[in-house]
Amino acid sequence: MNDISREPQGIGSVPELAVSQWFNTETPFTLAGLLGRPVLIHAFQMLCPGCVAHGTPQAERAHRLFRNTDLQVIGVHTVFEHHAAMTPVSLEAFIHEYRLTFPIGVDQPGAKSPMPVSMERFQMRGTPTSILIGRDGTIRHHGFGQEEDMALGAMISSALSEARPTTISA
Amino acid sequence: MNDISREPQGIGSVPELAVSQWFNTETPFTLAGLLGRPVLIHAFQMLCPGCVAHGTPQAERAHRLFRNTDLQVIGVHTVFEHHAAMTPVSLEAFIHEYRLTFPIGVDQPGAKSPMPVSMERFQMRGTPTSILIGRDGTIRHHGFGQEEDMALGAMISSALSEARPTTISA
Amino acid sequence: MNDISREPQGIGSVPELAVSQWFNTETPFTLAGLLGRPVLIHAFQMLCPGCVAHGTPQAERAHRLFRNTDLQVIGVHTVFEHHAAMTPVSLEAFIHEYRLTFPIGVDQPGAKSPMPVSMERFQMRGTPTSILIGRDGTIRHHGFGQEEDMALGAMISSALSEARPTTISA
Amino acid sequence: MNDISREPQGIGSVPELAVSQWFNTETPFTLAGLLGRPVLIHAFQMLCPGCVAHGTPQAERAHRLFRNTDLQVIGVHTVFEHHAAMTPVSLEAFIHEYRLTFPIGVDQPGAKSPMPVSMERFQMRGTPTSILIGRDGTIRHHGFGQEEDMALGAMISSALSEARPTTISA
Repeated sequence: MNDISREPQGIGSVPELAVSQWFNTETPFTLAGLLGRPVLIHAFQMLCPGCVAHGTPQAERAHRLFRNTDLQVIGVHTVFEHHAAMTPVSLEAFIHEYRLTFPIGVDQPGAKSPMPVSMERFQMRGTPTSILIGRDGTIRHHGFGQEEDMALGAMISSALSEARPTTISA
Repeated sequence: MNDISREPQGIGSVPELAVSQWFNTETPFTLAGLLGRPVLIHAFQMLCPGCVAHGTPQAERAHRLFRNTDLQVIGVHTVFEHHAAMTPVSLEAFIHEYRLTFPIGVDQPGAKSPMPVSMERFQMRGTPTSILIGRDGTIRHHGFGQEEDMALGAMISSALSEARPTTISA
Repeated sequence: MNDISREPQGIGSVPELAVSQWFNTETPFTLAGLLGRPVLIHAFQMLCPGCVAHGTPQAERAHRLFRNTDLQVIGVHTVFEHHAAMTPVSLEAFIHEYRLTFPIGVDQPGAKSPMPVSMERFQMRGTPTSILIGRDGTIRHHGFGQEEDMALGAMISSALSEARPTTISA
Repeated sequence: MNDISREPQGIGSVPELAVSQWFNTETPFTLAGLLGRPVLIHAFQMLCPGCVAHGTPQAERAHRLFRNTDLQVIGVHTVFEHHAAMTPVSLEAFIHEYRLTFPIGVDQPGAKSPMPVSMERFQMRGTPTSILIGRDGTIRHHGFGQEEDMALGAMISSALSEARPTTISA
């Protein structure tokens, strides 16, 4: 019971992110704070070839394409293997070299598991994982592996077009 | 005046297609008949490298991705150069070899111009051209050249989410 | 017997090309006339997707890369299906639109078979086919389908480095 | 003078590699020990996007394509920026994740310069750099940036076809 209560409460069915360090943003993000806006989470590892070739450039494209909307793209560096190889120092150079501009959080290492905390909470199967959260704080899409750009664009657009829930109080 | 009156009336600001022959459909399409549904027009030439490499496969992807919606994807073979090289006989083989499954109409040859009739009516600048028409029969997007999949997916999704105009009477 | 004797004699084990029309060259080529030089034959059809995406651009790259050697790249348009769709008129537009600069011959239509004459003589299985002929007029490589650029570059270089046979008399 | 004399002597005009740690090989390589065989050196950094997308996969292709020849492909991890981000620990995970099978040496860090020793000796301009060394120990190609597969295949083949110098004594 305590264990659970110590976890920050997510929004509806969505758990909260656990991030130990942020890049590309001066203020940390929480999903609770983003309630009312669609959020695209791109979970990746910097040494995951499928992330580098497809997922991460796709997240950057989404960040740029929807920059005039209230979509928030968030990268989460979910290291579940080769932990010593993918430290925040290495990630920072990766972000610089690949010219990534969207906010990226380092997933908080797991206490007893190689899997980090956010990855565990969202029950991700691996990297890359794309999660789209609607304005009402519910998960609209939770996909593992390569996503088609056209399908992702359609899902994001659909999430953007939804009315902001009236039950949200700021 | 007469010249204009002889042209079939389009819907709102959208002119009508002029198609001499259809492939991949048993019944011809008209934009008037599609009023109330979003329509994606992919104008191409079978010997246009940018169409073959990008535009035409993209139209096929849109056709497949949105097959459970009421979007209608329509290809228009708008031959404005090398007319003898891109006859309907050649187009038919092209459609077969590239495994295209969306309906494709042959744009009606122009009487006095190398530019075919639909291409002229829509004032296209070349191929490939993508035109997205909303449920209300107005043009939402009219783009020449390569389109990003993510942006096109978002535009289609947005057009799909619009309410069917109440002024449409069947 | 007569049938065979009527065929032009090839060089060693290599049959002769049968070409009804040439593009990108003012003088026709024969393999007999090219004896002593390495020859890369790229057999293709203009409506074969694998040719357009891979084989034909690769032949163009070989033509450009080895332009200062005595390698001769020759395209052969070996139409064995959709004959009415891939006439020389269509081929000419294809060559223009895809900016092909290497010499291309139209394979002579077969008298009784849908397969054209050169294709039959070289016992090709389909398109694209790459055939590399050495300075001594023997076949060094006969491959169907996609070739790796690096392997093709190595084979061509190897053929170029061979000594010109002393038995050749001009 | 002393500075120069302290450097291990290269072969002819080629300096020696300075490697602090090897991966994918049980015994270290020296260029002196490889004299008589062609050597392809692929200098890269694991966080260099052009290396990851083009150069490193190309080196792997060369390693596989020429595996039955006496070509030796050697990777050199020439870290000249973000040193803390690209340690051998990170490199090892990179090699594992990208399924690289050719021998890779860690370039020895420079004493006073951010540029590592081998990189300095070979006067490389950046990464990726491809260096092809002939059987006689002279440099045949020294290229910075993206190489065409076909050209590289031809250069390697040409180096392989050269006679082993008679002056080499084992």
